[in-house]
Amino acid sequence: MAETTDDRLRLLIERVERLEEEKKGIADDIRDVYAEAKAVGYDAKIMRQIVRLRKMSPDDRAEMETILDLYKAALGLG
Amino acid sequence: MAETTDDRLRLLIERVERLEEEKKGIADDIRDVYAEAKAVGYDAKIMRQIVRLRKMSPDDRAEMETILDLYKAALGLG
Repeated sequence: MAETTDDRLRLLIERVERLEEEKKGIADDIRDVYAEAKAVGYDAKIMRQIVRLRKMSPDDRAEMETILDLYKAALGLG
Repeated sequence: MAETTDDRLRLLIERVERLEEEKKGIADDIRDVYAEAKAVGYDAKIMRQIVRLRKMSPDDRAEMETILDLYKAALGLG
């Protein structure tokens, strides 16, 4: 009985571990794509910004840019 | 020519986006496993600790536990 419960816990933990492995594999693939982009001359940091911007709605993007401009002006950035 | 370069950048960005989607899907699956574990009575927070501990080598785990005991003693924790 206790063994069955232990097995259930172990199986749940092992499912998490397999999924974490998969997730790590994909994170590695993402790193590879950025490395490939860098190798052909793109700026990986800017690409990450683009990915982030494309995830936002046009409204959210416009709002973020307005606030960013405001803060930049307040701090005397170009 | 400029179009070809733009296409290359767009394709790279889209590859990253597809991978990010996959990664998000797996993160959701992990959350589901923990929710399932919680539903049958396990403590998800402790399970996350177990997953972290199982990732470590026995040596690293022993070292971490020694230091943890030391700090606990220093701060008067049981």
